[in-house]
Amino acid sequence: MNELAVAVLEGSRRALARLLTLVENESDGAGEALAELFPHTGRARIIGVTGAPGTGKSSLVNALARVYREQNKTVGIIAVDPTSPFSGGAILGDRIRMRDLAGDSGVFIRSMATRGSLGGLAHATRDAVRLLDAAGFDVVLVETVGAGQSEVDIVRTAQTTIVVEAPGLGDDIQAIKAGILEIADVLVINKADRPGAENTRRALRSMLELGHPVARARIIAHHGRLALDEQPAEEIDAAVWVPPVVSTVAVADSGIDELAQAIEDHHAYLQEHNMTEALERQRVRIELYDRLRVTLLDRLLADVPAEDLSGVIERIQQRQLDPRQAVETLLALQRGVRE
Amino acid sequence: MNELAVAVLEGSRRALARLLTLVENESDGAGEALAELFPHTGRARIIGVTGAPGTGKSSLVNALARVYREQNKTVGIIAVDPTSPFSGGAILGDRIRMRDLAGDSGVFIRSMATRGSLGGLAHATRDAVRLLDAAGFDVVLVETVGAGQSEVDIVRTAQTTIVVEAPGLGDDIQAIKAGILEIADVLVINKADRPGAENTRRALRSMLELGHPVARARIIAHHGRLALDEQPAEEIDAAVWVPPVVSTVAVADSGIDELAQAIEDHHAYLQEHNMTEALERQRVRIELYDRLRVTLLDRLLADVPAEDLSGVIERIQQRQLDPRQAVETLLALQRGVRE
Repeated sequence: MNELAVAVLEGSRRALARLLTLVENESDGAGEALAELFPHTGRARIIGVTGAPGTGKSSLVNALARVYREQNKTVGIIAVDPTSPFSGGAILGDRIRMRDLAGDSGVFIRSMATRGSLGGLAHATRDAVRLLDAAGFDVVLVETVGAGQSEVDIVRTAQTTIVVEAPGLGDDIQAIKAGILEIADVLVINKADRPGAENTRRALRSMLELGHPVARARIIAHHGRLALDEQPAEEIDAAVWVPPVVSTVAVADSGIDELAQAIEDHHAYLQEHNMTEALERQRVRIELYDRLRVTLLDRLLADVPAEDLSGVIERIQQRQLDPRQAVETLLALQRGVRE
Repeated sequence: MNELAVAVLEGSRRALARLLTLVENESDGAGEALAELFPHTGRARIIGVTGAPGTGKSSLVNALARVYREQNKTVGIIAVDPTSPFSGGAILGDRIRMRDLAGDSGVFIRSMATRGSLGGLAHATRDAVRLLDAAGFDVVLVETVGAGQSEVDIVRTAQTTIVVEAPGLGDDIQAIKAGILEIADVLVINKADRPGAENTRRALRSMLELGHPVARARIIAHHGRLALDEQPAEEIDAAVWVPPVVSTVAVADSGIDELAQAIEDHHAYLQEHNMTEALERQRVRIELYDRLRVTLLDRLLADVPAEDLSGVIERIQQRQLDPRQAVETLLALQRGVRE
């Protein structure tokens, strides 16, 4: 059996850290260990936390971690940084704020950054969550900052997704983005002691009333033809969970028990409606399709000589070959190589 | 030769509209016409306009269209609606505001909505732009609303991308999103007669100074391993165009000439630095990889019997097969079918 995998199962934090580095670097070296650890996954509660810079996400994650520690649960935290130069400062601040958990051996914190590929980061995050799951952490918190698709992909790993907003981020940098709202299972207004919190709450509520269930189905089902075509619609339509809006002041530990309760409620809701398995099947299917897309393209690019590929691109640019024909041409070239 | 294609080249707006419908529905029927029209593309200036609901994007597109019409250029407009229930209201408003261009035969306006697939919408938008290009429009304006990856994918079609902001959208729904800023070639502060415009300008400038060139390279190169690995870095690094910030009041036609000039400046910059071809090659490569991913996955899903796929997903869920092994299993199943 793989040495690192054995060490992780025996509780070695060093082995865990080394494997996480391999995963982060998208190294092939992690594959064997991941495969051997995979049967040991599926026990952790996986909770995603996302929100714009300045919402106090990391303080909230810290506060949640403390609540779980009080319940004698071990906690793994993965802080994902899509490495936008625009959010670099906030991320650094987040890391510093995390230090107050560092002395507790029941908590494991790991930051992950992209090595150039957003798609790769989503894969690496899934693997990292599995590692912490296999290592026996009761709760895995996945924290991500950012805008748009990348964090949607990342939080899809989670069983419950928390979207954090904050009032009064100023006129110029704001938090509420429809695309992100749509993935929320629980909404948090952090820094709720600030002026404007009531406005933020009202805005969130009206956005929720406007269209949440449909939007949610669309986002769960996202990546297009995939889920909308193949997932029985009923599985999605049953999910008319309306996200509660919880007010917190994370740095003062205020509202955190209510948040933990809302997360529990969501979990209970999913179980009560037999949604847990269906949603996991959906996550598995999405992951599988994502991986297949990457692998199939990689394989084609490896099969087809680089000069043939450049030639095809050149011919498209010269308007001699249209992109659809180009796809067929490349598939035929691949078949030629393989036969 | 394909009848619709001939009619489009002869200037038939009805044929154009019919082809656009086929493209929007992702119907195979459009393939032949698109292939035949493809050699006739490459002449239009393609300009993307994106921004949050409430920024006055559509008024701006209208005003820009009028400027181009005064220059005796014909204008095609594609308004893309990723159909989020959250933005439905704004979109409807946009369509109504567009009516003031409807009497001009030198303008063609087309709204496009997703039929379930965001990825599909990006493909369909690329095709729609090509149709308007082949139909002889001098300028094609692609307008898209939304949040995140979907509009990044959509505006990547454009040679010049305009990101529209507005001051005072309220504390609760705001416009500036780092991920969107990163794709801007020209920044517009519309509704610049409102209070807070100067704050918005300052915030934009400081965000630009903070990290624009690197961020831009990353976003141009986005979709991961693809561009960062394969595109010579120099091609990207040469692009240290810093987006100008233009103030407009679109409904009063104020600042629109300056905006048109900024778009021209960007165009001239690209040509001066011999960037035009390199950037187009990049767009072609990204499109090709996107199409290959979709086609390769579709083909695999068609090859592998549905019950085998369900079986694999089931085995992942039971922790009997890890996702990496599952990919190999499915590839082997496909090979078995094909041999």
